[in-house]
Amino acid sequence: MSDAALPEYRRDPVSGRWVVIAPERSARPMTLAHAEPHHRDADGRAECPFCEGMEHDTPHETYALRAPDTVPDGPGWRLRVVPNKFPAVRPIAEVVAKSRDTFFEARPGFGRHEVVIECARHVSDPVALSDDEFRDVLLAYRDRVAALSSDPRCEYVTVFKNVGAEAGASLAHLHSQIVATPMVPDAVVAELAGANAYYTREGRCVFCDIIARDLADGRRVVAESTHFIALAPFAPRFAYETWVLPKEHDSRYETLTDIRAGELAGLMRRVLAGLDRVLRSPAYNYYLHTGPARSAALPHYHWHIEIAPRTARAAGFEWGSGWFINAVPPERAAEELRELM
Amino acid sequence: MSDAALPEYRRDPVSGRWVVIAPERSARPMTLAHAEPHHRDADGRAECPFCEGMEHDTPHETYALRAPDTVPDGPGWRLRVVPNKFPAVRPIAEVVAKSRDTFFEARPGFGRHEVVIECARHVSDPVALSDDEFRDVLLAYRDRVAALSSDPRCEYVTVFKNVGAEAGASLAHLHSQIVATPMVPDAVVAELAGANAYYTREGRCVFCDIIARDLADGRRVVAESTHFIALAPFAPRFAYETWVLPKEHDSRYETLTDIRAGELAGLMRRVLAGLDRVLRSPAYNYYLHTGPARSAALPHYHWHIEIAPRTARAAGFEWGSGWFINAVPPERAAEELRELM
Repeated sequence: MSDAALPEYRRDPVSGRWVVIAPERSARPMTLAHAEPHHRDADGRAECPFCEGMEHDTPHETYALRAPDTVPDGPGWRLRVVPNKFPAVRPIAEVVAKSRDTFFEARPGFGRHEVVIECARHVSDPVALSDDEFRDVLLAYRDRVAALSSDPRCEYVTVFKNVGAEAGASLAHLHSQIVATPMVPDAVVAELAGANAYYTREGRCVFCDIIARDLADGRRVVAESTHFIALAPFAPRFAYETWVLPKEHDSRYETLTDIRAGELAGLMRRVLAGLDRVLRSPAYNYYLHTGPARSAALPHYHWHIEIAPRTARAAGFEWGSGWFINAVPPERAAEELRELM
Repeated sequence: MSDAALPEYRRDPVSGRWVVIAPERSARPMTLAHAEPHHRDADGRAECPFCEGMEHDTPHETYALRAPDTVPDGPGWRLRVVPNKFPAVRPIAEVVAKSRDTFFEARPGFGRHEVVIECARHVSDPVALSDDEFRDVLLAYRDRVAALSSDPRCEYVTVFKNVGAEAGASLAHLHSQIVATPMVPDAVVAELAGANAYYTREGRCVFCDIIARDLADGRRVVAESTHFIALAPFAPRFAYETWVLPKEHDSRYETLTDIRAGELAGLMRRVLAGLDRVLRSPAYNYYLHTGPARSAALPHYHWHIEIAPRTARAAGFEWGSGWFINAVPPERAAEELRELM
């Protein structure tokens, strides 16, 4: 492989935003033409590289839940984590750029990109997982975030999931993705900065205040369990956008216990099933926002999962202005979800 | 109409980003299910509200190019601008919120949302316009930006275009949209801030420096005319993203002369035709970035049009991290475009 094909981080000299130039991604098996706005029961079993028995089609597993008498990269597993065959970033040697052009700033596309194969059988709907299976997925996130964070070159670990082709899923078989990067991503930088400014001003965590206000108000509460809450955020970019947060302050997802993971799985499944009923199995993304790798317990930040249904497409207004138009007020979205959950 | 249906700007208490909650938009005629990744010759002539003879289907025109002996809102026009029937923002009385909750901050969704119907005949491909017709579209942008900017309640005018359903176009008949708002949108705020910081540090316009460097380097130059240049930006969010800028420094699009508009139209048509050839008539958005309403000539800002083809969907990684993964390096995109233009 030539150097030209290696991924690269590049910074826009005007706005300062970073992008990932990943030439290898163009080879991955996906075409826009086949995208569907709703996720469906999976087809394409025959060639699925994530099914049991197809382990030779994926790189060597980095984590697995398997029966005691089975071997890595063989059958007999119920969850596997493997490196992404079409990675956006790679474990290349350099983390810092050799050239120091500060105008057109580029850095080697160092990082790790993994796939969590969430079950051995060929299903595409997260709600088809049992509570125990969903818990194991949440624990795999926790354990891989912790493992990848231990590399001092990694400053952040992003966990996300695409459900349905309209949400960017290229393979139907249930999977999530994990990307470890040498910088904290722009969206998390913005949240950390806003949360830190609020904490400096008010002496409290802004997420804790959101939870307290929404519990008192009630209109945007979607669902609750003992230790977690699902909310329609006050200023959602997307119709039926839902955030799931621990009620008690905690900046790092890695502290999640096995028991709490089971509780969170139950709440996540209820919320996702509610979205399926209200929006008739929409495509959606969800992603984890947690503290930077190896960060101490931060008083101003609060980990959470954001669920973003794909009911409308970002168009010229959104890309040009950075403002999202959302046709569904969160108070109405929460009410509809509560009624159908 | 009840107050609950009026649009509202809302600010996220964590990141500070604004969104537009626009309940009326849910009534507009579009379903995700019919989206196509490529734009096509238009169908649906029979019910098209933008065709000549269907003027009764649109609100009263605010601007038109028409034959001398014709009347407003009747046939005989070659370009019309009308208020959007399904507006994201509205000319409601209040601009500033009555309630001053600074935590959950909301403002009335004041603004104006117009549609530029670019020609009387039912075509969907911008390249099907003649150079003169395209020039008239660019001049309509100029004149409406100037007119809407004269309202002291408007701080910014956003001009954008969606081509193809995948890019958010809900009607095939060629049209652009114009949205005047009482705040400068987040994406423009970020550009203005970055450009201002660069100017303070270097004493030069960052866009002028980009043009000078790219002209010297050549690899990212897509096309040129006497006074304009089309570039693949160094850090593009989207594959084949292209920026079109005046070579000479100018912060406000409204200064565009009729003659320069003709030159710009020719360059735009060449670039869009090139994208059609390289990407086989992709869906795309383009949008104008210009100085705020009534701003003086700014030494640090430089108006430009960004063209964003829709060849991949933003997925969990993009929404969660704010970083875009782009599989096509801009140097390769510019080379392919140059070869096929």
